[in-house]
Amino acid sequence: MMKALLLVAHGSRRQQSNDEVDKIAETLKAHCIKEYHIIYSSFLELAETLIPDGIKKCVDDGAGSIVVLPYFLNSGRHVVKDVPSIVNAEKEKYPGVEFIISKHLGASDLMLDLLVSTANTAVNEFIQQD
Amino acid sequence: MMKALLLVAHGSRRQQSNDEVDKIAETLKAHCIKEYHIIYSSFLELAETLIPDGIKKCVDDGAGSIVVLPYFLNSGRHVVKDVPSIVNAEKEKYPGVEFIISKHLGASDLMLDLLVSTANTAVNEFIQQD
Repeated sequence: MMKALLLVAHGSRRQQSNDEVDKIAETLKAHCIKEYHIIYSSFLELAETLIPDGIKKCVDDGAGSIVVLPYFLNSGRHVVKDVPSIVNAEKEKYPGVEFIISKHLGASDLMLDLLVSTANTAVNEFIQQD
Repeated sequence: MMKALLLVAHGSRRQQSNDEVDKIAETLKAHCIKEYHIIYSSFLELAETLIPDGIKKCVDDGAGSIVVLPYFLNSGRHVVKDVPSIVNAEKEKYPGVEFIISKHLGASDLMLDLLVSTANTAVNEFIQQD
């Protein structure tokens, strides 16, 4: 079964922020092609591709299972209500497809490592500048 | 020299989101006490502790070096302009203290691992539910 990973970010009026999300999805493709055969980015609002279109792209590419990954740091209303509500509405259209909504990023154990690593990188670059 | 890590999040009207940030800073304390002796969370706006107060707490605790870590996914105006501008203004008050502003989280290589790990955890939990 073809597995898809759909990154869902909030979407910004600032195109550069949306481009950053698209670029992360692109980089992710090379990073986990063995685990997820199809990877797209999508947005809750303000930017293209919107979530329903992102889901359609995954299904059109042959996904039998779609992991929806909220690219959010906190468990606000968007993560708790808006994203699940949109995904559940789309789910009705594709009865043969499995949908899994993952936790948001701030809930991951790896977040601690990411924080320390980001700080350490800054310190090392600062020392090298001296 | 005592090293401090100051997490800087946006701040939300929703107290639960701010509590999540405070909790991450708390957990981080146990996680990297050898590298950073002092760890606090702070907020750009809408929530206590604000950045200047967070910096003051680090200095009062004896920090000789403060790594300011923007808890943001994208390099928007807050990361590029607002946080550096506030930190630079505070820097003037503490001439003996070294200030390092790290990149935002979305710029880290570890972000890819965090994304895949978050997705995989969701898939495993989904399988176990079946």
